[in-house]
Amino acid sequence: MEFSMPVRPQRLPRLFHHCLLRPGDVPPSQDDLKVVGAFNPGAVETPEEVVLLVRVAEAAREQRAGYVALPRWDRGANRVVLDWFTEDEVEFEDARVVIVKSTGRKRLTSVSHFAVCRSRDGRTLDAVGPIRFLPASESEEYGVEDARITPLEGRFYFTYVAVSRHGVATALASTGDFKTFERHGILFPPENKDVVLFPETIGGRYMALHRPNPAQHFSPPEMWLASSPDLLHWGGHRPFFGSTGDWDRGRVGAGTPPIRTSAGWLEIYHGNDRRPNDTGIGTYSAGALLLNLDDPSRIRAALSEMLVPEADYEREGFVPNVVFPTGVVTRGSSLLVYYGAADECCAVAEWRLPDLLSRLLETSQTPEAGRFGSASST
Amino acid sequence: MEFSMPVRPQRLPRLFHHCLLRPGDVPPSQDDLKVVGAFNPGAVETPEEVVLLVRVAEAAREQRAGYVALPRWDRGANRVVLDWFTEDEVEFEDARVVIVKSTGRKRLTSVSHFAVCRSRDGRTLDAVGPIRFLPASESEEYGVEDARITPLEGRFYFTYVAVSRHGVATALASTGDFKTFERHGILFPPENKDVVLFPETIGGRYMALHRPNPAQHFSPPEMWLASSPDLLHWGGHRPFFGSTGDWDRGRVGAGTPPIRTSAGWLEIYHGNDRRPNDTGIGTYSAGALLLNLDDPSRIRAALSEMLVPEADYEREGFVPNVVFPTGVVTRGSSLLVYYGAADECCAVAEWRLPDLLSRLLETSQTPEAGRFGSASST
Repeated sequence: MEFSMPVRPQRLPRLFHHCLLRPGDVPPSQDDLKVVGAFNPGAVETPEEVVLLVRVAEAAREQRAGYVALPRWDRGANRVVLDWFTEDEVEFEDARVVIVKSTGRKRLTSVSHFAVCRSRDGRTLDAVGPIRFLPASESEEYGVEDARITPLEGRFYFTYVAVSRHGVATALASTGDFKTFERHGILFPPENKDVVLFPETIGGRYMALHRPNPAQHFSPPEMWLASSPDLLHWGGHRPFFGSTGDWDRGRVGAGTPPIRTSAGWLEIYHGNDRRPNDTGIGTYSAGALLLNLDDPSRIRAALSEMLVPEADYEREGFVPNVVFPTGVVTRGSSLLVYYGAADECCAVAEWRLPDLLSRLLETSQTPEAGRFGSASST
Repeated sequence: MEFSMPVRPQRLPRLFHHCLLRPGDVPPSQDDLKVVGAFNPGAVETPEEVVLLVRVAEAAREQRAGYVALPRWDRGANRVVLDWFTEDEVEFEDARVVIVKSTGRKRLTSVSHFAVCRSRDGRTLDAVGPIRFLPASESEEYGVEDARITPLEGRFYFTYVAVSRHGVATALASTGDFKTFERHGILFPPENKDVVLFPETIGGRYMALHRPNPAQHFSPPEMWLASSPDLLHWGGHRPFFGSTGDWDRGRVGAGTPPIRTSAGWLEIYHGNDRRPNDTGIGTYSAGALLLNLDDPSRIRAALSEMLVPEADYEREGFVPNVVFPTGVVTRGSSLLVYYGAADECCAVAEWRLPDLLSRLLETSQTPEAGRFGSASST
């Protein structure tokens, strides 16, 4: 293992953590597919339970020597079909991504959908499925990924990544019961991921964090803030937060949807430590931000490396050394953070919310390196 | 010269073309800068004249042996300052772009603003400046580029590219008189260019074409369509049009703002013929699209290579073999297209509008390769 544990003065130990779900726990959506990942779960509390929208990544069950199967949702068939390429026809970028040599375009080795899972205590799962949210259009043909759920005005809205021949975009859907779903289309065109909605309007506007991924690197990917009159049309785009240190020098993106606390909006975000010319994917850890309640562009405090890969299921797996928070629930003074581990499993970790807020307010200065509060006016 | 003229059956000869403006015709905005480009002009007809917003690219006037000067608008100074690097500290990507080795981030070798130019006959310039639209915020610190002007509700709106340490975004500004300007902020976050506004609302919505440039190449860059209730917040994003042939296999993007004609919305767009692994920038040519007036996602006809680099000032210059349309005006039956030539000069070319529309309707099938009309529903 390349991973070693440096001294991390800002860390606040987890009180509890647990691997909730592994790929083998989820039945595939089709007979010809196998589940290779069950990770990056959106999470929300309903009156009865915690509901998770787990990303289920599936690949071809059949293996043919000398061939690579690339799955794709097909409009005509309204199901996932397999495109078989010879090994010579594709080039592996990493375990997830290949380049089709004839076109120079990328494809994924798996295709993802969401399975609705339920937990009464928030710490162990009671039910996996059977409800699924499956790809349903050309803009989702390479899969739907990484749901983030926000309760808004009596309904559950979730953003998700829609991957297709048109790129990696973020779309919106909603549900009242996690049985039937309504799609609202693409909110942020390619390439944009890690979109989280605030659970209330602020100054009469819906608010979101998003993370553009530009082709040209004038900056490393940064989080941006945007606002909307109606959840469907977005503007007021401004740079919000970038790297603060080595642990997030390669990439930052929103993790969990912001939640209201007495000290401000709490946002748990991910950072990646990959250097520009490093090979490999690097380590994904998580930090926390505390934002002004009336103006979330004002960052009150930041905590680096709140959650780093430590458990076996975080340090080993489909992509080693990844913790990737995508959901958060509070229960009394407990903060439960749901996250993907090693791009393979779902896990939950617990902190005392008052301890986390104290640590944020005690140890953090407003992080000048990461914020662009004064830089955003045009 | 690498350029050679293939047979182009769809071409419709220009009736007139003329180089309007060269860098030497424009006084620099500061004593320590020299003008290296006067190109990619936005254009609009007012009751008196045609007004152009010409992109003026400026670089350091001083040359120091062994050093490279990178210009940047500075908030404190409220002017362009020069950052000097040793030649060892930067790597040239092309004549316009360097990578600063210490950070891995890009910078530009020139910084652009707009000069207001005027023409009574639309074919020759009467005045260059003195009004300028200069960078004015951190999101514009590496320059403002490629204005596209649309008259809307009695005011002139123009989109423009804002380049900064936060990436390449598209912003909006407006004016009533081309003397004072109002900024409306960033409409499309990084990386997005080639944004044109339709001159009317359609079904109660403002409409735009835009061109995301994703980091991951699941597709080559494509034009997308979006809509807005207020010009500031944008949604309804859907893929609109992609490559149709060799001439635009590398890149397509909107060129001139769409104009209403009897046969539909006329959009003149650019295409680039660079293959994925080619070195160099490739050739930029222009084609035309005719869109349904009530539903511009429906493409009636397409014409490839309406305008290709032929004149000396199109084939030789700062970036050889570039024609890049950014403005259009009709006068009687004349269609005047304003464009950047070789990333260096402004030029105008003329066609008879009825001939162009006839050619579009006669020779074009609806281009299946390039359209995504039925693919956009989510």
